[in-house]
Amino acid sequence: MKYYNSKIVSTNYEETLLKVVEELKKEGFGVLTEIDVKATLKIKLEVDFRRYKILGACNPPFAYKALQLEENLGVLLPCNVIVQEKENREIQVSVVNPLISMQAVNNEALVEVATEVSLKLSNVLSKL
Amino acid sequence: MKYYNSKIVSTNYEETLLKVVEELKKEGFGVLTEIDVKATLKIKLEVDFRRYKILGACNPPFAYKALQLEENLGVLLPCNVIVQEKENREIQVSVVNPLISMQAVNNEALVEVATEVSLKLSNVLSKL
Repeated sequence: MKYYNSKIVSTNYEETLLKVVEELKKEGFGVLTEIDVKATLKIKLEVDFRRYKILGACNPPFAYKALQLEENLGVLLPCNVIVQEKENREIQVSVVNPLISMQAVNNEALVEVATEVSLKLSNVLSKL
Repeated sequence: MKYYNSKIVSTNYEETLLKVVEELKKEGFGVLTEIDVKATLKIKLEVDFRRYKILGACNPPFAYKALQLEENLGVLLPCNVIVQEKENREIQVSVVNPLISMQAVNNEALVEVATEVSLKLSNVLSKL
């Protein structure tokens, strides 16, 4: 089991970002944060990096349940989804695997929540 | 080894947030994202939650190095720092332990970067 699941998509970079946000919404996730890695590295380090965005997705009912079970879980939230343009110009979408992140937490009660969130993120990937 | 390190501080919630940002800066981290969990849960679910913010901290040189070693590492970035008011009104700061997150990645080359980042985050905690 990997720490992420990913898919090469046939839509372009901008279309993919819109589609990801739309599919996340259908599964109950809002995008709370967005990091433009290419722009950040250009501004901070003056280096050229490929197009790469990190979206922080949050499903509020699940986040609420999880935070009540584990008060420091916020260090592992939200669930990140990456859209990146690879060296060969392919567009790849990767979603974090919450089951792997949860292994480190070692709280049995969280496994059920993480399993449901994992399924929802897999649904998003399958729709792209 | 836990997935986070934390500390109860003597400053109040607002002062702690400012101090955390200041100390992160001294260690080369900018705060790229901020999630107000209390406000988000109030808006989305109409529930009352304690004061709880998740700051997404990024040290650009380390992030750049790490992303070159592992193209999907973005699902685990940035490094989160939580400031929360506990039930007993104490203010707690928790920082993610990047060494634990990296275990799931299974890329030997990343261990050195994660160790350095971990030290920097420990420095931040020790200054609060």
